[in-house]
Amino acid sequence: MDGLCYGGDYNPEQWPEEVWHEDVALMREAGVTLVTVGVFSWASLEPSPGHFAFDRLDHVLDLLDAGGIKVNLATPTASPPPWFGLAHPDALPVTADGTRLAHGSRDTYCVCAPAYQEASVRVARALAERYRDHPALAMWHVHNEYGTWCHCDHVAAAFRDWLRARHGSLDALNDAWTTAFWSQAYADWDEIAPPRATQYLPNPSQALDFRRFLSDAMLGHYRAQRAVLRGLTPDVPVTTNFVFGSWVPVNNWEWAGEVDLVAIDHYPGDRERAAEQTAFAADLARAWAGGRPWLLMEQAAGIVYTGTRMLAKRPGQIALHSLQHIARGSRGAMFFQWRASRGGSELWHGGMVPHAGPDSRIFREIRDLGRLLPRLADVSGDVLADAAILWDPESWWAVEAPGLPSPEARYLDALHQAHRVLWRSGVTTDFAHPSGELSAYPVVLVPSLYLVSDATARNLARYVEGGGTLVVSFFSGVADEHARVRLGGHPGALRDLLGIRVDEFLPLDEPVPIRLHDDGGGGPRTVNGSIWSERVETRGATAQAWYRGGDLDGLPAITRHRHGAGQAFYVSTRLDDDAYAAVLACAGVPAAPVPVGVELVRRSGGRLFALNHTATEHEIAVTGTDLVTGAEAGGVLRLAPGGFAVVSTL
Amino acid sequence: MDGLCYGGDYNPEQWPEEVWHEDVALMREAGVTLVTVGVFSWASLEPSPGHFAFDRLDHVLDLLDAGGIKVNLATPTASPPPWFGLAHPDALPVTADGTRLAHGSRDTYCVCAPAYQEASVRVARALAERYRDHPALAMWHVHNEYGTWCHCDHVAAAFRDWLRARHGSLDALNDAWTTAFWSQAYADWDEIAPPRATQYLPNPSQALDFRRFLSDAMLGHYRAQRAVLRGLTPDVPVTTNFVFGSWVPVNNWEWAGEVDLVAIDHYPGDRERAAEQTAFAADLARAWAGGRPWLLMEQAAGIVYTGTRMLAKRPGQIALHSLQHIARGSRGAMFFQWRASRGGSELWHGGMVPHAGPDSRIFREIRDLGRLLPRLADVSGDVLADAAILWDPESWWAVEAPGLPSPEARYLDALHQAHRVLWRSGVTTDFAHPSGELSAYPVVLVPSLYLVSDATARNLARYVEGGGTLVVSFFSGVADEHARVRLGGHPGALRDLLGIRVDEFLPLDEPVPIRLHDDGGGGPRTVNGSIWSERVETRGATAQAWYRGGDLDGLPAITRHRHGAGQAFYVSTRLDDDAYAAVLACAGVPAAPVPVGVELVRRSGGRLFALNHTATEHEIAVTGTDLVTGAEAGGVLRLAPGGFAVVSTL
Amino acid sequence: MDGLCYGGDYNPEQWPEEVWHEDVALMREAGVTLVTVGVFSWASLEPSPGHFAFDRLDHVLDLLDAGGIKVNLATPTASPPPWFGLAHPDALPVTADGTRLAHGSRDTYCVCAPAYQEASVRVARALAERYRDHPALAMWHVHNEYGTWCHCDHVAAAFRDWLRARHGSLDALNDAWTTAFWSQAYADWDEIAPPRATQYLPNPSQALDFRRFLSDAMLGHYRAQRAVLRGLTPDVPVTTNFVFGSWVPVNNWEWAGEVDLVAIDHYPGDRERAAEQTAFAADLARAWAGGRPWLLMEQAAGIVYTGTRMLAKRPGQIALHSLQHIARGSRGAMFFQWRASRGGSELWHGGMVPHAGPDSRIFREIRDLGRLLPRLADVSGDVLADAAILWDPESWWAVEAPGLPSPEARYLDALHQAHRVLWRSGVTTDFAHPSGELSAYPVVLVPSLYLVSDATARNLARYVEGGGTLVVSFFSGVADEHARVRLGGHPGALRDLLGIRVDEFLPLDEPVPIRLHDDGGGGPRTVNGSIWSERVETRGATAQAWYRGGDLDGLPAITRHRHGAGQAFYVSTRLDDDAYAAVLACAGVPAAPVPVGVELVRRSGGRLFALNHTATEHEIAVTGTDLVTGAEAGGVLRLAPGGFAVVSTL
Repeated sequence: MDGLCYGGDYNPEQWPEEVWHEDVALMREAGVTLVTVGVFSWASLEPSPGHFAFDRLDHVLDLLDAGGIKVNLATPTASPPPWFGLAHPDALPVTADGTRLAHGSRDTYCVCAPAYQEASVRVARALAERYRDHPALAMWHVHNEYGTWCHCDHVAAAFRDWLRARHGSLDALNDAWTTAFWSQAYADWDEIAPPRATQYLPNPSQALDFRRFLSDAMLGHYRAQRAVLRGLTPDVPVTTNFVFGSWVPVNNWEWAGEVDLVAIDHYPGDRERAAEQTAFAADLARAWAGGRPWLLMEQAAGIVYTGTRMLAKRPGQIALHSLQHIARGSRGAMFFQWRASRGGSELWHGGMVPHAGPDSRIFREIRDLGRLLPRLADVSGDVLADAAILWDPESWWAVEAPGLPSPEARYLDALHQAHRVLWRSGVTTDFAHPSGELSAYPVVLVPSLYLVSDATARNLARYVEGGGTLVVSFFSGVADEHARVRLGGHPGALRDLLGIRVDEFLPLDEPVPIRLHDDGGGGPRTVNGSIWSERVETRGATAQAWYRGGDLDGLPAITRHRHGAGQAFYVSTRLDDDAYAAVLACAGVPAAPVPVGVELVRRSGGRLFALNHTATEHEIAVTGTDLVTGAEAGGVLRLAPGGFAVVSTL
Repeated sequence: MDGLCYGGDYNPEQWPEEVWHEDVALMREAGVTLVTVGVFSWASLEPSPGHFAFDRLDHVLDLLDAGGIKVNLATPTASPPPWFGLAHPDALPVTADGTRLAHGSRDTYCVCAPAYQEASVRVARALAERYRDHPALAMWHVHNEYGTWCHCDHVAAAFRDWLRARHGSLDALNDAWTTAFWSQAYADWDEIAPPRATQYLPNPSQALDFRRFLSDAMLGHYRAQRAVLRGLTPDVPVTTNFVFGSWVPVNNWEWAGEVDLVAIDHYPGDRERAAEQTAFAADLARAWAGGRPWLLMEQAAGIVYTGTRMLAKRPGQIALHSLQHIARGSRGAMFFQWRASRGGSELWHGGMVPHAGPDSRIFREIRDLGRLLPRLADVSGDVLADAAILWDPESWWAVEAPGLPSPEARYLDALHQAHRVLWRSGVTTDFAHPSGELSAYPVVLVPSLYLVSDATARNLARYVEGGGTLVVSFFSGVADEHARVRLGGHPGALRDLLGIRVDEFLPLDEPVPIRLHDDGGGGPRTVNGSIWSERVETRGATAQAWYRGGDLDGLPAITRHRHGAGQAFYVSTRLDDDAYAAVLACAGVPAAPVPVGVELVRRSGGRLFALNHTATEHEIAVTGTDLVTGAEAGGVLRLAPGGFAVVSTL
Repeated sequence: MDGLCYGGDYNPEQWPEEVWHEDVALMREAGVTLVTVGVFSWASLEPSPGHFAFDRLDHVLDLLDAGGIKVNLATPTASPPPWFGLAHPDALPVTADGTRLAHGSRDTYCVCAPAYQEASVRVARALAERYRDHPALAMWHVHNEYGTWCHCDHVAAAFRDWLRARHGSLDALNDAWTTAFWSQAYADWDEIAPPRATQYLPNPSQALDFRRFLSDAMLGHYRAQRAVLRGLTPDVPVTTNFVFGSWVPVNNWEWAGEVDLVAIDHYPGDRERAAEQTAFAADLARAWAGGRPWLLMEQAAGIVYTGTRMLAKRPGQIALHSLQHIARGSRGAMFFQWRASRGGSELWHGGMVPHAGPDSRIFREIRDLGRLLPRLADVSGDVLADAAILWDPESWWAVEAPGLPSPEARYLDALHQAHRVLWRSGVTTDFAHPSGELSAYPVVLVPSLYLVSDATARNLARYVEGGGTLVVSFFSGVADEHARVRLGGHPGALRDLLGIRVDEFLPLDEPVPIRLHDDGGGGPRTVNGSIWSERVETRGATAQAWYRGGDLDGLPAITRHRHGAGQAFYVSTRLDDDAYAAVLACAGVPAAPVPVGVELVRRSGGRLFALNHTATEHEIAVTGTDLVTGAEAGGVLRLAPGGFAVVSTL
């Protein structure tokens, strides 16, 4: 599609036909260009097994087409109808403790159940055969937010097949999982099961492989539908919408190569941190897309429903957050859903047309944004990032396992802090794969990268040797790709690169003071380390900060190692944001000259997004034309509280 | 029975026969007139299926009769014996996640299981046949505290029958439940099940209908026993004891018409608020009884056992709380249980005769109360209430569903606050049904009435048009009787009556200031709103208070709409108690001239109950005879700390 | 074995053969004398049912023997291999709600399942037949940390048999369990089941008997293996390792007589209280051993893994805590495990050789301790205790049941406080059985002894009559051995002995002041009572302290009763540690003249252990030779911070 996509999930099956006409009229008023249709339509499209009813959908697509609105057509497989579970109880998902979940919500299926696999392909095929030539069809949206776990016997069988392919032999698997511990050695493939409810601590390597397997099992389900769709409509792009959360066993690095356009859903769950959470999500999406354009497929209009409560977006945030995504590479801004449902499980989830109808603050903001977006249609070019953060879902999963040293040492906390500190410093950030090419970045942050393969270790060493600056945080490099601890001293795979050796991890009950020698010219000062500490011995590195008091009194807390043409820092504790920023300053990360909460994103080709998340007016130094207002900025641009501009600096 | 009932649950099966004689002697000493026998006697009455053993009960009833003590004879169906579950495992209850509960406590049955239904009627019939002519028999007490959930297949089948009767067609059900959301449309009745454990958020309309169904299913179980009892003893009143709690799916409005005497159990769970909780419970009971006499069937003697801990009643509270109930229409004061059990699940639940025996503070207070009550035997006449509060269990249930806007916006909190503020102001309050006749009340409070049918909306409008004052709190009028949101702006069904329109609910993370223009003459002042706010637009109403700061700065927080001969207030946030009282004062609710904690309840026929819940002495202005002491009050009555009087003012 | 045992669990199956040689060399360097082999080796020893593979273990034992290291050979039954659960799903454990747990951790078995019983004996026999004559074999270690619950049908059948033996008749059982409450009377043995998930509160007497049964069922499993081992190796001592926790249904008083050497595992879970927790555990172990030597079989080296987090031992604590155990009678100091595992469920549990390898603080401390211990080889003689505390696991279990008066009135809290206050006063303490001989102790503390049989009551009376001083804390003497409350006033069985009668328990929401008349000469002062209070009436006793304010104003809080030649105190509330110490001073417990945190333990035969747990240097008055350093102490011994000495005072 040309221009930016604007619209949302459209579920006409929730409304009588007379509303459809009003819908199209309101969509046109709001500048909607694309709607996602059919995500939860299975029961209406296939009311009984194998009997399809397309009349109403025909009518809807024709109406949309007549209104000039394109369709992102979804396969409805995320929400099997009631008849499905009744006919195939073995295809309902089973929890770790053996409870077979019932129909009554959404996502009640097992991706490994043959009946579900067959039904999924059947409905996808019927849909594609029906609409392959419809003029409104612009994109395929397979399924919805993959992430449903199952522990049933279908899953067990598939898991065994997957393990056989991954490990090759039982000996290799036993070695990788360290099954010699607690007498878990497998003598036959049939002895292996998913990690189900058991007496005490489970095996962390098994848990990690099970997440990897689930990612692949879901990917198999996606690919089966994609094959059908590509066969019938080779020119229509196919995607699915990624959701991000600790319960989602999807490796987005691997999935991103399987979609024609990376698409994400994003619902910031903390009102005070919504702006930084939005930047975080958008930067991740761009990383998955390999820097190419991607699409914000769902966000909330007005109300973010968190599962337990409604968070209302503040006035202006619908546009401001949408612009954050577009600044970071999204080819538009889409919402769930067009009209708030009057009933059902998510009746308090917002809509572009809320319960109150179009005469509402929400719809007026939606309409205003829709009128603005065409002015930004030609924004393109790469996002210009100043730093990178390594992101590794497998390290995340491994650190989520029970039995780890400290429940406070969470991967996501470390990842969020790294991104947040850069964001608040005005630094635009990429996320990068640990084994990816890093040489373009002056500095790379490595928050709690628990799993480091030999190949990753080599990649990081190469990067530093070539002149890069690496800032590694505590609890990195500890284990290999099977979640086995590397012996001989931490941080295992990164010891030589960092020029240190750690013989003990010492999680902290309470903060300890650290004397920080601030290279940035600030002189020595005392900061706090919390939740974690380590007994660090320098072996080539020089100490930059020291523990004060406690069992580590006088020992190094932060080190720096010159290696090849570059340098590698190690931070052995959790710093607060300011101290972490000071360390990054030492490492050469330049803070942008803007106040915290004013966000600048530059695109190659001379586009600057300037977004003011604060409650006060700010000025920024820039020359060019504001595409939003058409005004010329001659050196200084004023940003109202909550205001934004997109400046063409050419 | 004449006079006031005084006594409690008597479980002679817990004690050897020699204790029975002491029991009757102590009962006589304590003035006991009525005991509830047999609630948990099934195993002793029917030790094996179909074989009854009545000898011991014969003896007990004869002893009681000889002592002049009447019997409230219970069918024992709330506690099936061990043999029942062993013989009929399909009649044991099943949780939402499919766990079939085992015998080992009480209430291990499913009211929809045929085997349980048959066994219940059989034991009720045997009991009635045995004791139909016993002179001690004064009342039938069916079952105990109905409230046990089940999700088994018997329940599923019965639920489907109930739904068919309620909705008529699958189309109507699909529409009522908004099953178009998330592909839940049912194409066959057999696809419908109770809300069992599922993958994510359940359907709130299904959950609401399931509670309604459970209420009716239990009522069916009650009616089956009642039919047997009425057939054999047409002149003996039949009742059951209502318990109140969020886990109890009983619609007391509907059940009250099925009992010959409304009876409640009440165990205040908060020592500091026991007095207001007691008034609340008693006012509800009177409402269910339609203003007629009712009976406090169970309260705690000495110890309230909350399920996790013992709360001891303070000295004097046994009488004081009993008097609260009697003041509000109870025809007596009954306890669970006569003797504290020395073992079993509730061994730390109190007794009128505690573990320590009759030489105890508890028994002495029990005895003193028993000696007092005959002096109040002729208290009758209606409770004279100054205000009403609407109570609607279905709104409560609907707001308990997952997926609602705010976990803080709880129905019971709103209901309790309304009652508490009136109670602390010295106002005696009725609870009223939303569609009931309201014209007798100068003011009616409507706390968070989420579900409002068209008929209820018309009833409320009629009330205001006729001159009434309505005070509606936030989150009212939102949905129809199927829990579907009313579109076009909140508070849906009450927009015109209130003269406002709300296009957004904005739950609050922290309190916001509100400028309140106090019509009561107090001048403007600032109070706080918490947990909830709304974007209110006046459409005929006038603002009485305004939000300050935040996203709603300057918009109305409280409004007043003159409508017909009356007026309707809307309060769009949660006020603290004092601010709420100020709004009620504006609405014309007169505060009584008594300190907080001194409670006055007037009965028609010239009886005034005066109860001092405070720790200091108070005087009240009254002339008449104190029935408690026989003393004459000539204009002023002194109430000692914790003291009380019942004044005949004729 | 001669000398002190030093070593730990050795799991060579976790490592390749080349590491074994390094292991033996490092063990020799560290002075290791004994290793526990095979605890989790079932899968490697019996890789498929009935097929044994001993080659690698042969090699390991030979290597150890060649290195002069003895072996504590374990039967591996605590961790059945994967094939076991696959072949015998009925032998996997079942939770109270019916979930059958899967293989995937350890301890996935049911001790009542015939298949498990057979497989356990088979593997034990094969092991004993193989190694009966191996020169390294020094001890048998059956199973590991017995404590796995199961609620399956095998358990139900065994429970019924056990109940039949214990109670003799259904009438007796119904009486003991008070099944008359809630209609639970059993008419047939087959109606009885374990306490499974049920509708509401379970029967506490059933729950107590189930714990007793589980203890005996596990003991049966132990005895079956012991019979095989004793048959084949009559001269090799047999033991198992006790673990202590509320989830462990093992009555150590009864088990201790079944092992040839009491052995315990101890992992202090609170860094700040590790020293007092260690003393507590060691004193318990000595009590179980009847004062004879026992063995610390497992402690953590460096890292205590609590199940959710790592706690690192502070520098010096490996030795300091080991010395605490040895001071209290342990014949050595053993660890879990020799080498930290690089993977598996407990990869973050510490090891004597940590992940970092021998070049580490941990291993250096291990080596230093190993070099020290031979100097203490001849320490023997009885621990000289000044006081005793009654310990009763059945009271503990009974108080853990749901339905008790206060969740704060926990048995372990009371027990820990009694021990802690003595420990901080420098008093060495024994634990004693309630029916054991107490006359040797000047004072005996009785914390919350809920269950008191008639025999125990007589024993305590005899002790006081003979001149002893008893200090009984609240919530004691309440129930009989079936957990039935004793009627007529608390503390039931101890009323006469204490000269008091209590008619009410009044758990406290917040502390109440108590005026304490300090016999120790300190004059009256005010302290606080918390969580609990009682309405105490003296009947022979004299009050020592009185409640102030509240409902008990002016009534006795602490009493003293002269009885026979002795005296009995009663403390009706929880005091803080200082006030409790003051009461103990009144009772004649002499505080030792050492600062808090300096621990002295005297052994008969002239050995004094002096351990400084503080961060400052202290001096103690002693004359003799320090066996640790060889230095002579001429009247004064200096203890460095964290330092210790073992002085021969002969």
